[in-house]
Amino acid sequence: MEVISGTHNKLLKLYKSLRTKKWRDRLGLVPLEGRRLVAEVLQRGIRPEFLLLAAGKEEEILSQLPVLPAGVPLYAVEARLFARTAFTESPQDIMAVVKKPVWTEKALFPQEPALLLVADRIQDPGNLGTMLRSAAAAGAGGAILLPGTVDPSNPKALRSSMGAFFALPVVEMTFAGLQAFLTKQKIALAVAGVGSGLMYDEFDWRKPVAVVIGNEGSGVSPEVAGAAEATVSIPMACEIESLNAAVAMSVLFFEAARQRRRR
Amino acid sequence: MEVISGTHNKLLKLYKSLRTKKWRDRLGLVPLEGRRLVAEVLQRGIRPEFLLLAAGKEEEILSQLPVLPAGVPLYAVEARLFARTAFTESPQDIMAVVKKPVWTEKALFPQEPALLLVADRIQDPGNLGTMLRSAAAAGAGGAILLPGTVDPSNPKALRSSMGAFFALPVVEMTFAGLQAFLTKQKIALAVAGVGSGLMYDEFDWRKPVAVVIGNEGSGVSPEVAGAAEATVSIPMACEIESLNAAVAMSVLFFEAARQRRRR
Repeated sequence: MEVISGTHNKLLKLYKSLRTKKWRDRLGLVPLEGRRLVAEVLQRGIRPEFLLLAAGKEEEILSQLPVLPAGVPLYAVEARLFARTAFTESPQDIMAVVKKPVWTEKALFPQEPALLLVADRIQDPGNLGTMLRSAAAAGAGGAILLPGTVDPSNPKALRSSMGAFFALPVVEMTFAGLQAFLTKQKIALAVAGVGSGLMYDEFDWRKPVAVVIGNEGSGVSPEVAGAAEATVSIPMACEIESLNAAVAMSVLFFEAARQRRRR
Repeated sequence: MEVISGTHNKLLKLYKSLRTKKWRDRLGLVPLEGRRLVAEVLQRGIRPEFLLLAAGKEEEILSQLPVLPAGVPLYAVEARLFARTAFTESPQDIMAVVKKPVWTEKALFPQEPALLLVADRIQDPGNLGTMLRSAAAAGAGGAILLPGTVDPSNPKALRSSMGAFFALPVVEMTFAGLQAFLTKQKIALAVAGVGSGLMYDEFDWRKPVAVVIGNEGSGVSPEVAGAAEATVSIPMACEIESLNAAVAMSVLFFEAARQRRRR
């Protein structure tokens, strides 16, 4: 296995460039870090473009991974250089570069009736990644990102999504685009509200629905909230004002899954 | 308002010492950062020991906060010094020091039947804080932390808990202590499992129950899992292997709240 020991190596430079959305989009590539995430992606049958392993631990790392597809280029990277290249702070010993999945609107419907996540200016990449992971697990058909939402191929978002970004269709839309899409597809728009609207478990989740989760601080935009056919809220005890955005989203989507199992 | 401009100021030194559990425990104090968290704690009627405000923004910050109890000492801190003192990276302009709440076993029962969270070696402070926030919101009576769980007064945990740490009784116990406690109080022990056991919505959540959430990577300890009366699991689609620990916990506790509302 070739050992990379120079800062100016072109693969390391390429890897570092993937810190920005501009370069991830331009190259159509995303960076993955950590054994668990790389293993998850390999299990999904995704073929990495190349793998970077911390020098001295190559054998141990490979023995812990699923079998690699033939011909994936492997490189060892000197420990110090590895640490300086990685985006995540906690010690990791494997990095992978994989093709960024490209989804279109048509991919948003693996299931009937539709169940879609709409992220409205979610700012925290960890929250967005966790939402994609929960949406995929709850059987949602995809996620629609409104303008102002953090990029789902952000390294922290990828890490929180635990590979769900490669399983769940994710499409960017403007709000006008979303409205046209929902009208055409006859999907209702519901927003998650705090302390108002219908109790979330009294909502009929068996109909086609897209659920908006709003910004962590300011909630759903007034424009989007005004267009919603329903507001669903989670009753809370103990004078707690709000839930973590990814938690609220997950409680709603698993209630949808629960009702749909009982159909 | 007194302006602090020297690195060797004793209040700044005290604040910085609260980074470690040792000093938080020794002084019985915890550090809070950010307007939202400080406002949340003030709304709960908690009186801070003192407040540190970013110099130049004092009036604006105070105008955004609930009315302070009389006599809370206020200090302005020079901007650069403020940034170097704060634990959180994102720009904040207020820090508070408040007494660490002290709970005993007896505090664990505000509601009947009991609903308790048991954290088994939860490592991520953000996850633990989010769990406390969700547990309080779902009406749980408290949280029990088994050895190896991150400290809930860790600054990141406090930030994620959004003040729930001051609303929800949190008690540390050994596993033997937990077993004795549950036997005495006639509370069942359930563990959250992956892909095995009873579907979580078929479990009867109206009986007194303590629910174990295990380590983010390795799950519930075999010793604890072996002693559980039930394993409850959340069915997942899309070949997703697991949920974020705080999400899984929240889905279970809001199902408990849902069933209890329908009693």
